[in-house]
Amino acid sequence: MKQKVVLAFSGGLDTSFCVPYLINKRNLEVHTVIVNTGGFSDQELKGIEERSKILGALSHTTIDAVNDYYEKGIRYLIFGNILKNNTYPLSVSSERFFQALSVLEHVKKIGAEYVAHGSTGAGNDQVRFDLVFEVLAPDVKIIAPIRELGLSRQEEIDYLKSNGFNFSWEKSKYSINQGLWGTSVGGVETLKSSGILPEEAYPSQVSDHGVERIKIGFEKGEPVSLNGEKMSPVNVIRTLHKWASRFGIGRDVHVGDTIIGTKGRVAFEAPAPLILVKAHHLLEKHVLTKQQLYWKDQLSNWYGQLMHEAQYLEPVMRNIETFLDDTQQFVTGEVDVELRPYHFSVLACSTDYDLMNPVFGEYGEVNKSFTGQDVIGFTKVISNPLKIYYTIHK
Amino acid sequence: MKQKVVLAFSGGLDTSFCVPYLINKRNLEVHTVIVNTGGFSDQELKGIEERSKILGALSHTTIDAVNDYYEKGIRYLIFGNILKNNTYPLSVSSERFFQALSVLEHVKKIGAEYVAHGSTGAGNDQVRFDLVFEVLAPDVKIIAPIRELGLSRQEEIDYLKSNGFNFSWEKSKYSINQGLWGTSVGGVETLKSSGILPEEAYPSQVSDHGVERIKIGFEKGEPVSLNGEKMSPVNVIRTLHKWASRFGIGRDVHVGDTIIGTKGRVAFEAPAPLILVKAHHLLEKHVLTKQQLYWKDQLSNWYGQLMHEAQYLEPVMRNIETFLDDTQQFVTGEVDVELRPYHFSVLACSTDYDLMNPVFGEYGEVNKSFTGQDVIGFTKVISNPLKIYYTIHK
Amino acid sequence: MKQKVVLAFSGGLDTSFCVPYLINKRNLEVHTVIVNTGGFSDQELKGIEERSKILGALSHTTIDAVNDYYEKGIRYLIFGNILKNNTYPLSVSSERFFQALSVLEHVKKIGAEYVAHGSTGAGNDQVRFDLVFEVLAPDVKIIAPIRELGLSRQEEIDYLKSNGFNFSWEKSKYSINQGLWGTSVGGVETLKSSGILPEEAYPSQVSDHGVERIKIGFEKGEPVSLNGEKMSPVNVIRTLHKWASRFGIGRDVHVGDTIIGTKGRVAFEAPAPLILVKAHHLLEKHVLTKQQLYWKDQLSNWYGQLMHEAQYLEPVMRNIETFLDDTQQFVTGEVDVELRPYHFSVLACSTDYDLMNPVFGEYGEVNKSFTGQDVIGFTKVISNPLKIYYTIHK
Amino acid sequence: MKQKVVLAFSGGLDTSFCVPYLINKRNLEVHTVIVNTGGFSDQELKGIEERSKILGALSHTTIDAVNDYYEKGIRYLIFGNILKNNTYPLSVSSERFFQALSVLEHVKKIGAEYVAHGSTGAGNDQVRFDLVFEVLAPDVKIIAPIRELGLSRQEEIDYLKSNGFNFSWEKSKYSINQGLWGTSVGGVETLKSSGILPEEAYPSQVSDHGVERIKIGFEKGEPVSLNGEKMSPVNVIRTLHKWASRFGIGRDVHVGDTIIGTKGRVAFEAPAPLILVKAHHLLEKHVLTKQQLYWKDQLSNWYGQLMHEAQYLEPVMRNIETFLDDTQQFVTGEVDVELRPYHFSVLACSTDYDLMNPVFGEYGEVNKSFTGQDVIGFTKVISNPLKIYYTIHK
Repeated sequence: MKQKVVLAFSGGLDTSFCVPYLINKRNLEVHTVIVNTGGFSDQELKGIEERSKILGALSHTTIDAVNDYYEKGIRYLIFGNILKNNTYPLSVSSERFFQALSVLEHVKKIGAEYVAHGSTGAGNDQVRFDLVFEVLAPDVKIIAPIRELGLSRQEEIDYLKSNGFNFSWEKSKYSINQGLWGTSVGGVETLKSSGILPEEAYPSQVSDHGVERIKIGFEKGEPVSLNGEKMSPVNVIRTLHKWASRFGIGRDVHVGDTIIGTKGRVAFEAPAPLILVKAHHLLEKHVLTKQQLYWKDQLSNWYGQLMHEAQYLEPVMRNIETFLDDTQQFVTGEVDVELRPYHFSVLACSTDYDLMNPVFGEYGEVNKSFTGQDVIGFTKVISNPLKIYYTIHK
Repeated sequence: MKQKVVLAFSGGLDTSFCVPYLINKRNLEVHTVIVNTGGFSDQELKGIEERSKILGALSHTTIDAVNDYYEKGIRYLIFGNILKNNTYPLSVSSERFFQALSVLEHVKKIGAEYVAHGSTGAGNDQVRFDLVFEVLAPDVKIIAPIRELGLSRQEEIDYLKSNGFNFSWEKSKYSINQGLWGTSVGGVETLKSSGILPEEAYPSQVSDHGVERIKIGFEKGEPVSLNGEKMSPVNVIRTLHKWASRFGIGRDVHVGDTIIGTKGRVAFEAPAPLILVKAHHLLEKHVLTKQQLYWKDQLSNWYGQLMHEAQYLEPVMRNIETFLDDTQQFVTGEVDVELRPYHFSVLACSTDYDLMNPVFGEYGEVNKSFTGQDVIGFTKVISNPLKIYYTIHK
Repeated sequence: MKQKVVLAFSGGLDTSFCVPYLINKRNLEVHTVIVNTGGFSDQELKGIEERSKILGALSHTTIDAVNDYYEKGIRYLIFGNILKNNTYPLSVSSERFFQALSVLEHVKKIGAEYVAHGSTGAGNDQVRFDLVFEVLAPDVKIIAPIRELGLSRQEEIDYLKSNGFNFSWEKSKYSINQGLWGTSVGGVETLKSSGILPEEAYPSQVSDHGVERIKIGFEKGEPVSLNGEKMSPVNVIRTLHKWASRFGIGRDVHVGDTIIGTKGRVAFEAPAPLILVKAHHLLEKHVLTKQQLYWKDQLSNWYGQLMHEAQYLEPVMRNIETFLDDTQQFVTGEVDVELRPYHFSVLACSTDYDLMNPVFGEYGEVNKSFTGQDVIGFTKVISNPLKIYYTIHK
Repeated sequence: MKQKVVLAFSGGLDTSFCVPYLINKRNLEVHTVIVNTGGFSDQELKGIEERSKILGALSHTTIDAVNDYYEKGIRYLIFGNILKNNTYPLSVSSERFFQALSVLEHVKKIGAEYVAHGSTGAGNDQVRFDLVFEVLAPDVKIIAPIRELGLSRQEEIDYLKSNGFNFSWEKSKYSINQGLWGTSVGGVETLKSSGILPEEAYPSQVSDHGVERIKIGFEKGEPVSLNGEKMSPVNVIRTLHKWASRFGIGRDVHVGDTIIGTKGRVAFEAPAPLILVKAHHLLEKHVLTKQQLYWKDQLSNWYGQLMHEAQYLEPVMRNIETFLDDTQQFVTGEVDVELRPYHFSVLACSTDYDLMNPVFGEYGEVNKSFTGQDVIGFTKVISNPLKIYYTIHK
């Protein structure tokens, strides 16, 4: 009896190549899985399923991981206002773990001895996939045919043809990875530091040239409404994406250190993540203390980095999530945002837990908790260490 | 013989009130000083000088502190990519120290026994001024008449009138503070969390509706050219301000914790600071290692906070500056920026010290320093702590 | 009818002075309170009560806050391995908040309009007390007679005599503050940097010259047994104190920055806190990951600093406690400690959650999770950023 | 003509095996090098040289790296008060880099194509050596025979015998690594968490049962005298080691995370490092501000971790060194230390730059820079954020 392999399958050239390869060359029973973290339409998912069958997989399974991805991942990216290098909402890096985990659950469900993925040997994703399998299922053997064989695109096409699969494989000019938390765009331009992507490389084009003001509602840190209409956080993200992408909002280029020690550069379009992070942050500036803001920043920055670097399973991540959860109990209110071509502004907010409350005074105008004389005493005391220092070092 | 007081004088209602008050009520010889950190034109400075004379000051001195402010302050704000709460370039808070220091030098020069400023008892500036005098000149006595007397606007006007000064004091709708590193805008709207400033409150209005691409050159971290034309950093800032403010770029609202423990909210327009910080940061992402970027962020964030909170004299600031200087030796190159109405994008860069160099491979495509097999070993080793953890806790 | 004041009363000269002063000069009805955080025996408490009556207080209340102090304070000092400046277990600074809180509860219970304490104007304690009252009961007025009047010791004695109180007030050579978490010792020697306290200044003297090995049991981070005998954490602390002080263990000198900006120096003897912190830390090194240890350190260090600086009420403290609690679920096991004159060593431990488990290999000897070849790959990948850096900068 | 290999040679079993192996099986011309970082006497070095000759190496070179190791390594460990996990002075981990660098210089000097070391595949040292060669000499090929072959001790002895080398190879019960910055001790006891090393496992035994007080002088952070006698920092370390090891001071057990992801445990005896770090730290508490102490701690902790993890070449290390250097300009003075069996205490210090200066008041007694009234104002202002918070959340 043949041994089973579960292949993470997207229907692209690389993973399509893997199906006949795993059947013919590795003599395995191939079960394909596509994990949807928000990037595929029903129609696309159907097309992927059909292709899997044509290529000879014994079964194909579509797993909807969107809610899981939001609950266990995106939610904390919002709580933490996480933008890697102050820029990138981790659109791609945050979904890989949830995809790997879903694949692994399928591996266990059908009792497969092998798991396969289409990663090359030159990127982050191989590490993100392998690590989950290594840690949670050390007995399952990993196959990454593209990494192992180092074939060229043409060789893969030729192999598929020689096995009777004559799909058209025009290389799209840009490599796109779409998910609930944004879309990455790679092209020849992003391979060098000075390359500038043309307008048309981005998935959304500006169709609205006006100005629009919207209101985003948060409850305990989670986005729960748009313009007063309640909806699930996932739907807030999807609706906001639709609204903002008409304006071409949310494009930028991420340059950062990869897990494997090189610098990497990738463009992205992530209107909903960027707007939600900035709106959430504004609300926090009003309801959290300076100390809370400082430590949230520290822990969140690290959380984002560990997530980016395939360390979602690190137990400190659970400790940080506990901290973040605890900080969100009063992050409830509404934020005003303005959308216009290519740009959004987070304008203002209202919340019942506002620490900027005129009851206590108005900054620069009047203060009700202490007098000018108190501030003189305050300044004398806080200047004391420096007064001593400069007297000693005069 | 009368004792001398040096008054930090801007020609506004508060400091105008102080002149006759210090002369008549405190029986002092008043010497006014205006310290220009980039916010005043020659004509404005001349007007201030004239007003001082009319009000009866014995001398008036104009001090140009722009270069000092750049060299000892702004330079490090650029090196550190400092935006307080990820938003505010410290437009106002960074210049107060340099103003106080210049005032203090004048105090020492003329041997004054007193120093006076027009701060109220409800803001940060009183602390920023007092602290410098407390620390560096504990023997000089500080007078802050507005804080001490708590007079209303009308009472100040009446007092001036009763002393024969009938200037017109129409309260401008917005309180503006302009300097080399940006302009703050306060109004009734910024006193509450939900207030939104109208378009016309901002000093610059959109006059260019097109798109423009520019190149900013950096040398060891400092901005030294625009579109290839060499100029001093101060002139880069000024020219960039001119270019970008035609597009209405650089507006935002800062919400933060004041030195005196309240939340404060202020709008600002700071096109040159925001663009320079983002452009400088992009260049750093290409030439610094991940570790350098991490620790620069940590130290810079703190540097910005201490500067904001009147702690420029804290000796750790000098230690941090040494660190920052040391990181900038290869931050040399050119950055491409796109300007359009309300928005700018930092597009790309070129530098001789680029760590993202195709010689070593292209991210996700090919890697020349190690093989896929090496990455398998790498992943096995880095997954080891988690593998142990999940085996123990299974 | 007279207004009421609650006076925090220790029976020492300062607070004894306050009783007749508050009655006669401030015309208040005086209710004294002693809050025991572990430093007073029943007999001492009885003596304090009697003195209060003699001095004319209308009521005296003894509040036992030991358990509260442990549950809400010391527990987190253990979880966080907190030693300020790597030295001081916060023996005094951690108990002040709990004392102030108990006093405040009594103020509310009897509906007093005033609260009084015996702090001088030159130390941390005035801030620790005032801040709790300012924050939680802004309407209650604070009186600190010693700070207000600035009397000398002799003037206080004379005032007491003139009111008919002829206690003997020999100044003890050393000022001692004792509590559950250790004892501080101040003297003329600690007022200057070069002063060395003599042996006899310390409360415990060496009476055991041998060597003793003990076992401390922890459960979810809390100390729960000694040599296998289960007891409450408070009793572990007390018993351990008894055992270790026979050896003169736990003495050191803390030098640090006070809340009011001076440097302060104080000796202390805190055998149980030091041993528990070091033993707990050892256990954590075995059961927590490197990342958990790192972030626990960061947050705990800050937690200790905020507690020291009177900021126990800061909401971030609750967030940090949540984080710390979450890290302690597997900090369960037994630690071997050796006691000898002046010295203890934390020798070894055993725990069911040990991440140093021979199942996975023995460090330096053999490794079961990967091969030498895997480590070669690992090293190639981690050396990649530096290889690039040194090639570029060659 | 044969290709050359430079072998890092200690004369122990593993590296002795390597000589004939590299000659016979790899057909290389073997040049041995011993790099002394303070652990070898002249006589030991001579013995190593003789053994190299007997084994057939074409040349043997002894490199004295003690000064380099101090100047570029230990100096910063002192400046940073670095004790990994609050325990371990990095006795072994800090010297490996300097050994590798010296070996590499020899490789370049004689133009060798290969470099070899005796590390196994289960420890940190393989990574520390490989990484230096990978980064600074990517063209030099690395051979680690013990790692590659995975031979047992007996197989190595047999191979040596079969090649005519009949040394006696009694396995010492404890594996000792000695250097200027301390000695590590491994044995069967350190392989499990509960093992306790016996007294005799430690290199130094208690021979002095008295008490001794000494004075250590520092100049700009470096140790420069003992009991007033000037000497080089290296000699301070050596002399202090001699004095303190008579008391059996400086033993402890380090438990930590290895580079390769396991937990490791090792005993050590490092009297001079521990005393110098604690004495240096005390001096810093007196001459540096709270902010300086905080950031020194942060950076030093990281510096130690990176050094431990083979990242000495990371450019951020140079940036941190610049910072540390800058903080040391006033760390000058003398520290009193008491030595007794197994224990030392850092008692007091004197320095011209003491920020704890009675000129400004005596902590808790009297304050000369501000009044009690000033502190009331100070407390009102610092309690303001909490007052607002608790009013909002009441």
